[in-house]
Amino acid sequence: ASIPSESRQVWQKFGVKEFGGKEEFQQEFIRHVETTLARSMYNCDDLAAYQAASQAIRDRLIVAWNKTQQKHTTKDRKRVYYLSLEFLMGRAMDNAMLNAGIKDITKSGVADLGFKIEDLLEQEPDAALGNGGLGRLAACFIDSIASTNYPGWGYGLRYQYGIFKQRIVDGYQVESPDYWLTFSNPWEIPRYEIQIDIMFYGYTRKYTNDDGKVVHVWEGGEQVQAVAYDVPVPGYGTETTNNLRLWASKPTREFDFEKFNAGDYESSVRESQKAETISAVLYPNDNFYSGKELRLKQQYFWVAASLNDIVRRFKKTHRPWKEFPDQVAIQLNDTHPTLAVVELQRILIDMEGVEWDAAWNIVTNTFGYTNHTVLPEALEKWPVPLFTNLLPRHMEIIYEINLFFLQKVEKMFPKERDLLGRVSIIEESSPQQVRMAYLAIIGSHKVNGVAELHSELIKTTIFKDFVTIYGPDKFMNVTNGITPRRWLHQANPKLCDLIASKVGSYDFLKDLNLLKKIEPFAHDPKFQDEWVTIKKFNKARLAAHIKQSNGYDVNVNALFDVQVKRIHEYKRQQMNIFGVIHRYLSIKAMTEEEKKEATPRVCIFGGKSAPGYYMAKTIIKLINAVSEVVNADTDVGDLLKVFFIADYNVSKAEIIVPASDISQHISTAGTEASGTSNMKFVLNGGLILGTVDGANIEITREVGENNIFLFGHLAESVEDLRHKHRFSDVPLDPNLEKVFNAIEIGTFGDPNIYVSLISSVTGSDYYLVSDDFQSYLDAQKLVDQDFKNKDTWVSRSITAVANMGFFSSDRAIDEYAESIWNIEPIAMD
Amino acid sequence: ASIPSESRQVWQKFGVKEFGGKEEFQQEFIRHVETTLARSMYNCDDLAAYQAASQAIRDRLIVAWNKTQQKHTTKDRKRVYYLSLEFLMGRAMDNAMLNAGIKDITKSGVADLGFKIEDLLEQEPDAALGNGGLGRLAACFIDSIASTNYPGWGYGLRYQYGIFKQRIVDGYQVESPDYWLTFSNPWEIPRYEIQIDIMFYGYTRKYTNDDGKVVHVWEGGEQVQAVAYDVPVPGYGTETTNNLRLWASKPTREFDFEKFNAGDYESSVRESQKAETISAVLYPNDNFYSGKELRLKQQYFWVAASLNDIVRRFKKTHRPWKEFPDQVAIQLNDTHPTLAVVELQRILIDMEGVEWDAAWNIVTNTFGYTNHTVLPEALEKWPVPLFTNLLPRHMEIIYEINLFFLQKVEKMFPKERDLLGRVSIIEESSPQQVRMAYLAIIGSHKVNGVAELHSELIKTTIFKDFVTIYGPDKFMNVTNGITPRRWLHQANPKLCDLIASKVGSYDFLKDLNLLKKIEPFAHDPKFQDEWVTIKKFNKARLAAHIKQSNGYDVNVNALFDVQVKRIHEYKRQQMNIFGVIHRYLSIKAMTEEEKKEATPRVCIFGGKSAPGYYMAKTIIKLINAVSEVVNADTDVGDLLKVFFIADYNVSKAEIIVPASDISQHISTAGTEASGTSNMKFVLNGGLILGTVDGANIEITREVGENNIFLFGHLAESVEDLRHKHRFSDVPLDPNLEKVFNAIEIGTFGDPNIYVSLISSVTGSDYYLVSDDFQSYLDAQKLVDQDFKNKDTWVSRSITAVANMGFFSSDRAIDEYAESIWNIEPIAMD
Repeated sequence: ASIPSESRQVWQKFGVKEFGGKEEFQQEFIRHVETTLARSMYNCDDLAAYQAASQAIRDRLIVAWNKTQQKHTTKDRKRVYYLSLEFLMGRAMDNAMLNAGIKDITKSGVADLGFKIEDLLEQEPDAALGNGGLGRLAACFIDSIASTNYPGWGYGLRYQYGIFKQRIVDGYQVESPDYWLTFSNPWEIPRYEIQIDIMFYGYTRKYTNDDGKVVHVWEGGEQVQAVAYDVPVPGYGTETTNNLRLWASKPTREFDFEKFNAGDYESSVRESQKAETISAVLYPNDNFYSGKELRLKQQYFWVAASLNDIVRRFKKTHRPWKEFPDQVAIQLNDTHPTLAVVELQRILIDMEGVEWDAAWNIVTNTFGYTNHTVLPEALEKWPVPLFTNLLPRHMEIIYEINLFFLQKVEKMFPKERDLLGRVSIIEESSPQQVRMAYLAIIGSHKVNGVAELHSELIKTTIFKDFVTIYGPDKFMNVTNGITPRRWLHQANPKLCDLIASKVGSYDFLKDLNLLKKIEPFAHDPKFQDEWVTIKKFNKARLAAHIKQSNGYDVNVNALFDVQVKRIHEYKRQQMNIFGVIHRYLSIKAMTEEEKKEATPRVCIFGGKSAPGYYMAKTIIKLINAVSEVVNADTDVGDLLKVFFIADYNVSKAEIIVPASDISQHISTAGTEASGTSNMKFVLNGGLILGTVDGANIEITREVGENNIFLFGHLAESVEDLRHKHRFSDVPLDPNLEKVFNAIEIGTFGDPNIYVSLISSVTGSDYYLVSDDFQSYLDAQKLVDQDFKNKDTWVSRSITAVANMGFFSSDRAIDEYAESIWNIEPIAMD
Repeated sequence: ASIPSESRQVWQKFGVKEFGGKEEFQQEFIRHVETTLARSMYNCDDLAAYQAASQAIRDRLIVAWNKTQQKHTTKDRKRVYYLSLEFLMGRAMDNAMLNAGIKDITKSGVADLGFKIEDLLEQEPDAALGNGGLGRLAACFIDSIASTNYPGWGYGLRYQYGIFKQRIVDGYQVESPDYWLTFSNPWEIPRYEIQIDIMFYGYTRKYTNDDGKVVHVWEGGEQVQAVAYDVPVPGYGTETTNNLRLWASKPTREFDFEKFNAGDYESSVRESQKAETISAVLYPNDNFYSGKELRLKQQYFWVAASLNDIVRRFKKTHRPWKEFPDQVAIQLNDTHPTLAVVELQRILIDMEGVEWDAAWNIVTNTFGYTNHTVLPEALEKWPVPLFTNLLPRHMEIIYEINLFFLQKVEKMFPKERDLLGRVSIIEESSPQQVRMAYLAIIGSHKVNGVAELHSELIKTTIFKDFVTIYGPDKFMNVTNGITPRRWLHQANPKLCDLIASKVGSYDFLKDLNLLKKIEPFAHDPKFQDEWVTIKKFNKARLAAHIKQSNGYDVNVNALFDVQVKRIHEYKRQQMNIFGVIHRYLSIKAMTEEEKKEATPRVCIFGGKSAPGYYMAKTIIKLINAVSEVVNADTDVGDLLKVFFIADYNVSKAEIIVPASDISQHISTAGTEASGTSNMKFVLNGGLILGTVDGANIEITREVGENNIFLFGHLAESVEDLRHKHRFSDVPLDPNLEKVFNAIEIGTFGDPNIYVSLISSVTGSDYYLVSDDFQSYLDAQKLVDQDFKNKDTWVSRSITAVANMGFFSSDRAIDEYAESIWNIEPIAMD
C-alpha cells in the first residue's frame, strides 16, 4: 500500500499475464527449457518437456491463484479450511489443462515442438498422499470447492514418501518406498518464508500474572519448523484457483545451546536432521488405527501449523475473537485432526487471554467433524501416558474439557452413572486412552456421516449416547460425491463428448443433474451404438495396459468385472476370489455345449494391503495363485481370465474405471461407510454388483433397482448372524465348501498358505462370507445372463449414468457449505 | 540433431536471450516475483526481491552456461576436472553481477522498484562448503579457470549443512548447524535426471569369462544415488561460464526386496532416508584428519559419481581408451579424492576390460596431486579393516597397485629393505593403514606443493623417499593465488576504481601484473590521500560491523591489526593474544606522557575452531576474556581494543580484509603450506606482520622486504629448537612469563581454564611460542613506530599492492594448465 507510484507503474507495466494462445505457451515452454531446466532443444526429452510444460501451466495457475487470494482477502468473507491428513491427488497436469481450458493449445503447442502430450502426461508421478477413499474424497472436495467458487483451503502434510509402491513378487505384495519427489514437483510452490515453530514434549507450569489471572505456560520442549508448500487448485470453468497448503517439517534454526558443547556437533546435526522425518512418510493404513508416537507427532505438527496459519490470517482483520466462527469454518476429515479442537482452545486461553467459556464457545462453533467409519479397529485412541509426554499442555486441556462436559451430562442425567463412563473422553482402560472421536464430537457443532445408512448407524451404535445428550440435530448426513472433472472429463473424454452432444454443452461438468438429459436416448439405437463403441474403446485401453503389465491378451468382448480398492476383509475380495474359483470349477465341469452358452468374463482385481495386514496379503496371494492357474488352463480359454493389476492408484483408476461392465462393491452390510468408487464406475457406464451397504443404497434409489445387482444380508441382520456363528453350529455354504476343497487339495499351490484365510470363514465368519455366498453366486448368475442381452444392458448403463447427478461432489460441497460451514461462493469477475 | 526443421524454427523463434538493459531485467524480475515466487508487489520483501533478482541473473548465467558447454563439446578439447571436497564459495549474487558486467543495470533496476541492491545482497546466505584456505582456494581457482577461458569443471559435494555457525556464549565458541538451504538456493540447477548409482560394502568374486580372462565383480552391497546440482561459474569479462557440479545423495529407487516383507515397511523407508545423510554434513576439521567411516563414504560417493560422469562424457566421443589422458586431466585437491585413482583403475579393468598395465598408464597420466600440508596430524590414513569392509574391491586393487610399485622399487634399490616398508601404501601398524598421500603420489604424474618453501619441504621431509624413487621432476611447486575479482573488485570497489584511474582501465582484474602501473604514484600526495581516504572508508565499514556485532565504537584512526583464520595452535593465535596481554600490561604501566606517544591499536580476531579441538577453543575463550577486561578498562581508552568477531566467513572477510593496516600470519616456520589470506590483505593495501613461512616468503620477494614485518626463527631451526625443548631446560621468555603471571593471578577470570594452554608453552612448546616471543614483540614495536609515519606507511602500502600481480590465481591456473594439465583456453566468440 505504501508503494510509490513510480514503482507501482513499473510493476504494472511488466505484470505477468496468463498466456493466451499457442505461441505464448510455446514461448513460456522454451523459456523454461532453456532457463529453469538449463537445457536446450538438443537435450529436451519427454521428462524435461513435461517439466517445462508443467512450469508454464503452473505459472498460469499462479497468476489466477494470486488474483483469487487477493479477491478473497478483499471480500473478507468466511472461509472454510478442510483439514485432511490425506489428499490423494493423483496427477495434476491433465487436470490443470482441462480445468483451465487450455488443453488444446498446449497439445498443439508441444506437438509443433516435436512432443506428444500423452507422452508428457505419462512422465508425471502420482501425488499419492493418501491410502484410499478418505484421501481421494478430500481431493474431489477441494476440486469442487474451487469449481463452485467457495473460498476454501485444504491443509495437509507434504509427505516425502506417499503410499508405497506395490509390486507383486511370486504372487505376494512387496512394498517399496514411493519417492515421488525425485524429479522435483512443478505443482507446488515452496513458501520458505512461511516457517512456523512447532513444539513437542517439555513441561507445563502456571503462574498468576499482574492482573491476578492464572496463566498456563508450555515450555522446554523439542522444536521443529513447519514450512508451507502451496498447491494451486484450479476450478473448472472459473478463474477461482484455491490453495492446498501442505506442511513439511524442517529443523528449526534455533538450537538448544546446552547440547552444543565440544564434540557434540555431529550428533546434534543428526538430531536436527531427525526433524525432517516427521512429515517423511504417509502411514499406509486404511481404516485401521495404529498408535505410533510418530503418527501423533504428525497429527499435532500439521494441526498446529495449520491453526497458527488460520489464526494469523484472522488476526490481520483486527476483529474481536468472538467473530472467529463468523470468519472461519474448519472441517475435520475423520478424527485425525481432532487435536485442532484442543489447539485452538489452547491458543485462545493460553496465548490470547480469552476466558475458558468464551473460548470454548468459539471453538465449538468453528469445527465440524466428519466420521468415516464405524469399524471398531479404525477408531483412534491414544494412550494417556504417551499423549501426556508428547503434548503435556494439551492433555491438561482435554481433562478440563472432559470435566466440564461430564459435569453437564451429570446434571442432565443425574441417575445414569454408567453413562458418564461411557461418554468420557478418557477411557478407563489400562493404560487410560483418549477417545479422539468423542473429543471431536464434543468440540464440534455438527457431526456428519458420509452416506445415509452410515449416518444412521453412527447415531444408533457408536455415538448413540451422544445423540441422547446433544439431541439428534447435531448429527446429520452428507452423502459423499466425486468430481465429474476428473472422473468423467479427464478419465473418459470420449463419453464426455458424446454426452455433451446430447446435453448441448459441457455444462453437466458443473451441474451434473444435466445428465438427466441423456435418459431419453437410453433406447436410441444410434446413441446406444456410440455408447457401446466408447465402452469398447475404453476396454481396449485397459486391455493394452493388462497386456503390458500382466502379459496377457484379453478379449474385449468379455464381461469386464472389476474390484479395485484397498484389500480388506470387510470389503470381501476373498468372497470375490472364492466366487472366481467357483466359476472356474463350474467351467471345468461344463460340456463343450454348455461352454458355448457361458458368458466370457475377465475378473480384474487391484488394490494395496496395509504392509502389516497378514490376512489381506494372503488374499492377494490367493488372487495371484488363482490367476496363474486359470489363465494358463487351456480348457478355460476366453471364458475366464483373472488379473491382479499391481500398484493400483489414481492414474490407473482413470484407465480402469471407464472400462468396467460390472464393478463389485460387496462389503459386509454396515461396514462400508459410503464408498466412492461405486459412484465413479456408474458415472462411466458400468453397473454395480453390490451389497446393500454405504452409498450403494442411494445409488440404487437414484438409478433404479433394475440397474444394479444387489445381494446379501442387510445390515440389521448382521449382528444376529454373527451371534449365531459364535454360539451355534452354522453349516458352511456347500458351494463355498467345494471352493475350499479345491484350495485344500493344492489346486492353487501350497494349501498351507491359505489355512487361516479359510478358517476365518469356517470359524466365526465375522464378515459373513459363507452367509452371503449363495446370494452372491445368484447375483453373478444374473449378471451373466443379463450381459448377453446387449440392448437391455446398454440402456441400463445409459439410464444409470443419466441419474448420477446426485453424486457430484459439487452437491456434497453445497450441502456442507449450507448446513455446516455457512459460507457462500465468491465469483471471480 | 534429428529435430525437424519446423520444430527447430519454433525453438529458435522463442529462444531465450540474455537480458540487455534495465527494463528487460525488470521484466524478468517481476516475472519471477509473480510466478516463481507466487508473490506480488504487495508482499515482496527484501528476501523475495533477492530471490527474484537472483533468478533473473541466474537465467542469464544459464544462457551463457549453455553456450559455453555447447562450445566446449563442439571443440572437443582436453578439459580439466578439479576435484575438491570443499568449495568455499561465499555469496554468489554480487560476484555474478560484477563478472557479467550487469551490476549497474540491476542496481538501478531494483531501485526503480523500491529496493536497495545492498539490502538484497545481505539476504544471501554464504555457501560455506569449506573449512578454510583449501576450500577457498578451490573457489578462487574455478573463478580463474572460467575467467581465463579454460574448459574446466569443479566437482564437489552439495552439503546440506556447510561449516557450522559460530556463536560466542560466555566467551566460548558454540556451534550450531548451518542450514543454508532454508530458503532454497537460486544459484544451483538441480539435475534430477543425472542420477548415478553408488555402491558400498558387499563382496567381490572372480570368474573366468568365455575368453579365458579373469573378471572381477563387486556386488551385493548397499546402494545410494548421486544427484547432480550444477552451479554456474561465470568468468569475468568473458561469456565463458563453467560448471561446478556438486553431488547430493538420495535413496536409490531400487530396493532389496528381501527386506521388504510384512511390517518392515516403515523401517525400510527410514533405511532409505539414511542415504541422504552421506552428503548432509561438511566435516568441520581444518588441517586435521579424523577417520570416521562416514567421511570415507563421502569421499567415495563423490569420487565415484564424478568419475562416472567424466567417463560417460569421454565415451560419447568414441575415442580409444588410451586417448583418455589426452582429453581429461583430473586434479586431486589434497588426498581427499585419492580414491579416484583406484576407481578409474577399477572402471578400466573391471568394467571396460582394459588390461592392467594399459589401464594404469592411463590412470597415472590423468591425475595430478596437490599436497596442502606437512603436518603429521593432517595426513590421511584409513584403517585397512574399515576400508575393506566399505570398499572391498578397491582394497584389492590397492594391494595390486602396491605390489607392482614395491616390486619396481625393490628392483631399483635391491639393497634397501627398509625403503620398501617406508614407501609402502600399507603402513604396517596395528591395524594396518592405507596411506592416502602415498597412493596419490604413485597414481599421479605430477605432485605439487602450494608455495616454494612448502614444495621444498615435501621433497625433503614427508615425500623424501619418493623423490629418490621417481626423481625430482615429478615434484614441483605452484604457488597459490587468489582471484582479484572477489578480493579486489567485489570486496574493495573504491580501491579498484582508484587503481583503474591510474592503470587506465580495469584490465588489471584480468592481468594483475598491470598493478605495477600504480607504483610510480606511491609517493604522489594526491594519490596517497585518496588511498588513505579509501582505507579509512573501509575501516569505518568494519567499525560499523564491530559496533553492531560487539557493541563497541572503535577509533578508525587506530591501527587495525587483524588475525582472521581458522584457530589452530600452529597458526599461533595464542602468541597474538599473549602479545596483546603484554601490550595491555605495558599500557597499564605507562605514564600519561608515555601514553600520548603510544600508537592506538584495535586488535581483531576471527576464526572457527574445530568443534572437538580443546586447545583452540581455549584460545578463543582467552581472546574473549582479554577483550572483556581490556575494552572495559578506562585506563586504556583508545590505546587498545580487542575484538573477537564471531562466525568468520567469506562475506565477513570481504569486509574485514580491506580494513586492515596490519594482518598477522605468524605460523611456526614450516607449518603453513602457503596461506592465501596473506595475499588478500596485501592486495587491499594492508601490510603483513609474519613469520618466514608459506607464501609470506614470496610476498616478501615481490613487495620487497621493507614492506613487510618479518620475525621469528626460520624453518631450518625448528627441529633443533624442538629437540632442545625436549631434552634440555629452556627458560621461558621473560616477557611471556609476565603474561602468564597476569593470567594466573586471575586478571582474565578463572585461571584454571588456561592451565593446559600455558603448560603447552612452558612444557615442550611444540609451536615455539616462547622462542619467537621476543622477536614478535620487537616486530610489533617496529609496527607501532612505523605506523606513526603516515607518508611512509601509505607509500609502502601502495608499493606492496603494485607488486602483488604474481598472486593472482589466474597465474597459478596458467601454471597448472601449462605444466600439469596440458590444456588450452577456448575463447568464446
